[in-house]
This record gives sequence, structure tokens and C-alpha cells, in this order.
Amino acid sequence: MDEIKVGDTAQFSKTITESDVYLFAGITGDLNPAHINEDYARNTFFKSRIAHGILAGGFISAILGMQLPGPGTIYIRQELNFLMPMRFGDTITARVTVTEKSPEKNRLKLSTTCMNQEGIVVVDGEAVVSPPKAPKS
Amino acid sequence: MDEIKVGDTAQFSKTITESDVYLFAGITGDLNPAHINEDYARNTFFKSRIAHGILAGGFISAILGMQLPGPGTIYIRQELNFLMPMRFGDTITARVTVTEKSPEKNRLKLSTTCMNQEGIVVVDGEAVVSPPKAPKS
Amino acid sequence: MDEIKVGDTAQFSKTITESDVYLFAGITGDLNPAHINEDYARNTFFKSRIAHGILAGGFISAILGMQLPGPGTIYIRQELNFLMPMRFGDTITARVTVTEKSPEKNRLKLSTTCMNQEGIVVVDGEAVVSPPKAPKS
Amino acid sequence: MDEIKVGDTAQFSKTITESDVYLFAGITGDLNPAHINEDYARNTFFKSRIAHGILAGGFISAILGMQLPGPGTIYIRQELNFLMPMRFGDTITARVTVTEKSPEKNRLKLSTTCMNQEGIVVVDGEAVVSPPKAPKS
Repeated sequence: MDEIKVGDTAQFSKTITESDVYLFAGITGDLNPAHINEDYARNTFFKSRIAHGILAGGFISAILGMQLPGPGTIYIRQELNFLMPMRFGDTITARVTVTEKSPEKNRLKLSTTCMNQEGIVVVDGEAVVSPPKAPKS
Repeated sequence: MDEIKVGDTAQFSKTITESDVYLFAGITGDLNPAHINEDYARNTFFKSRIAHGILAGGFISAILGMQLPGPGTIYIRQELNFLMPMRFGDTITARVTVTEKSPEKNRLKLSTTCMNQEGIVVVDGEAVVSPPKAPKS
Repeated sequence: MDEIKVGDTAQFSKTITESDVYLFAGITGDLNPAHINEDYARNTFFKSRIAHGILAGGFISAILGMQLPGPGTIYIRQELNFLMPMRFGDTITARVTVTEKSPEKNRLKLSTTCMNQEGIVVVDGEAVVSPPKAPKS
Repeated sequence: MDEIKVGDTAQFSKTITESDVYLFAGITGDLNPAHINEDYARNTFFKSRIAHGILAGGFISAILGMQLPGPGTIYIRQELNFLMPMRFGDTITARVTVTEKSPEKNRLKLSTTCMNQEGIVVVDGEAVVSPPKAPKS
């Protein structure tokens, strides 16, 4: 906690593949045709299958739990605004940035943003976590 | 939209397995030792590996996209409060309930709750969606 | 052991897919951007995402454990030289050939080579195994 | 390269699950009954199904490509000695340590070791890599 400052930031990037989306569908049970039915999806507003918006939350969780603050962090709250679709083959860069410190409550607030390879913000939102008191393992 | 009333509810249940958590870790990149290292996890507050909290968001997304409102829904916003850990072997029941209708904006607000097999609420929060105007496919 | 001669050879071929690489990344934790970030990989020497070199070791292990010498083999040592990248869509043929027999130590040495569909050797090396004394199951 | 010193070390730990082994079997084609046939494995020297030794190479690759030296590293060579079986449920800690620097050839030699939760070395060996000249991304 002492080592973390407002403005600290970390990121993680991944190209989303069809197999990511299909496994995510199987694990979560979210077999919405928008994700797994190309024939259906072709006639939707998005014109093709898209990834699950919640997957972006997974990338954010990866950063919070592995980098900033890192292992030992307790995840308290996440808000996600789904702004644009994430398409198969998009390279998504998730970024978290510390926006508030409450040392007395051992809480951090972080802005959480996911952009695609064109720099378009596809998901934004905010996280609240309780960082580990001991040094990161 | 016309067919949906405040108070309408739907649910989805799944027993979370080790393989769900491991695949979720691989897809999201969230290899936090709390999820994939039993030796580490034994010495944490939770005493064993736990599932990713964001996975609960996937169960909620499954209901919104497949049942209520169902296919064609645009997912706008999700808030998740992580209250208790989800453990390997827990059977999680996600439930969404319509709490507000704004027909003029074509928006619904829904409470979103995940309980384990003991009836303990592990995740709660709120979703905002734009239901399909056309009948569900 | 008695049935195996220097010069005996066996092979296994597989087309490497994006989903193979992504699952391999999740299982091993090797989320190196060279494997899962197309936007990053485009700017590397290899110009696109590549497969994990260690995956070739898995193909070799498949031959040793299933064909030559086959089930019951104890795997003692593997050397791998990573010569060229394996790309998504490449069809890799792994081949093992017995180069030395030490009946008194119950050891075999084998050359282990992986080629792509153009006949380019992408990985070579050497394995040492202890074949089963009983007939293969 | 300039920032790396002989003696630098990094590690990665993961509890190996049945699903890891089964997916690894499917990806590599290594369906050796020692890994996927409990009925067969019960009658082997190891008394139960064991993980693929090459999986340990994947953990080592994860460290080399993500931590030390990190993204941009070219993997040149890996030797693996399989000393003891890795069992389902074992927590494996892979560790790499720089043992030699050859700045003129831009090469590093590293010892690579995997231990289980009891501190028993299950795999050891050596890696040769070419670290990135530019700073790690």
C-alpha cells in the first residue's frame, strides 16, 4: 500500500481469438447467438460474432491480481461500461490507473479501461480493491 | 420490451469446477496465484484456491443475453460487488430481476445476484441493458 | 528393447492452430506477447504471433510415449534447439530416430527433429529414454 | 542485456490439475496412457496418472518470455532432465537463474529447475536465450 501512488498504472494486452470466445461461452454458459452463431450475427447491428463484454473484466482482473496491486489483493467492486463491441481478432489493451487512495480503509480506487488496436475505448469503468499489506509475493 | 415487467426474474446455476477456473485463467491471463497455486492459497485468508469473481459476471451475462431480456439485448453496464469467495465445487446460482423500466430510452435496470449452494450471496450488483425491440429470436 | 534397432524411426504430424497456441499459453502460463498479441507481434522480427517452441517438445514426447519405444517408456532427458519459428497454420512433422542403444543400461538415444510443411527444420535435438522391458501394451 | 547479471533469478508456480494434463495431451497428441488412463497407470511404477514432463518446459518458457529476460527474448536451446514424476495436484515452482553472460554473442545461459511443493527437484536443465537489446516492453 505504501508503495502505491495515485497515478500508478499497469496494462495487459491480448488478441482475442475465436477459441477464447468459444471457451468463455462454455465456461460461463453465455451461449448468446451474438457470440457463437455467425449466421445469426451477420444480421445483427454488429454484422458478425462479437466477444463477451465481461471478458474485458477478466483482463482487468488479471492486472489487478498480478501487477497492480498484485497478488494478495482483495477485489471488492468492479463497474464496467460496455461502449463498443470487441471483435474476434481485436487486440485489447486493458489498463488500470490508481485514482484514489484511502490508507485508513486500505482501499484503492482505479480507473479501468480497455482499448482496441485502433485506440478506441471499448470498455471503461472503475474498480475498488484492498491491496495486500505485506509486500507482494 | 413491452412484454417485460418490473419484477420479472430469471436464473442460471452452475457448479464451478477446477477446469472452469483454469481455463478462465488462461483466457483472461489472470494467473493470480490465488486461483492457480494451491500451495500459496493455503496460506491466504481464504485457505484454498478460489474462482475469479469476474466469472460471476459471465453467469449474469448468460442470463441477460439468453433469457431476460434474451438475444438481441445490448449490454450497457454492469456493476459487481465481490462479497464472498466462490470456491471450486460451489454451485452458483445467478439471478437477475428487473427493477426499473425506461421505455422512452429503451433501457432496463436489473438487480444481479449470485448465491452459492448455501444461500450465501457471493456477488451482487446491477445491470443496465437495452432490450431488443423486435421479438426475441 | 530387444525389438528396437538403431535407425528405427517414427513420426507424428499436426497442423498448429491458434486455439492450440492459446490453450498452451493458458496451461503453461506463457502469455508472452509474441504468442498472444498480434498487434505487438507484427512489430517483432517474426512479423506475427508464433507458437511456443516447447510445443514441439510435446509432439516429440507423443511419439516417444506412444510409438517408439511406446507406452511404459521412462523419459529421461530432452534437448531442444529452437531453430526457426512455428507459425499458426504450420503443419509440423516431428520425427524420432534411434541413434544409440545401451542394453546394459536399458537406455536409448534418439535424434528428435521437427519440420514444417516446407521441409524446414524448426526444432532439433536429442532424447534419452529407458524403454519398457515388458512388451508394449 | 546490460541490466541482467549472473545470479539474477525469477520463478513461476502453478498447481497442476487434471484438466491441464488432459488439455496438454490433446494439444500435443501425447495420449500416452501414463497420462490419461488411470486404470493402466495404477499398475505402473508411478501408481497413478502423471503429468507430461514437457509441461515443466512450458513453465520455464513462461518465465524466460515474460520475466527474465522477458518479452523480446529469443529462445535458442533448452535441456530438460526428467528426474521425478509430476503428479496431478502437485504445485510446481519453476525457477530460472542466470549462470553465464556472453555480451559479445548476446547470449545468456540459465539454469532451469522445477520443484514440487515438497522441495523435491522434479526437472532440471539449462536454457540458452538471446535477450532483447531494447528495454523490455
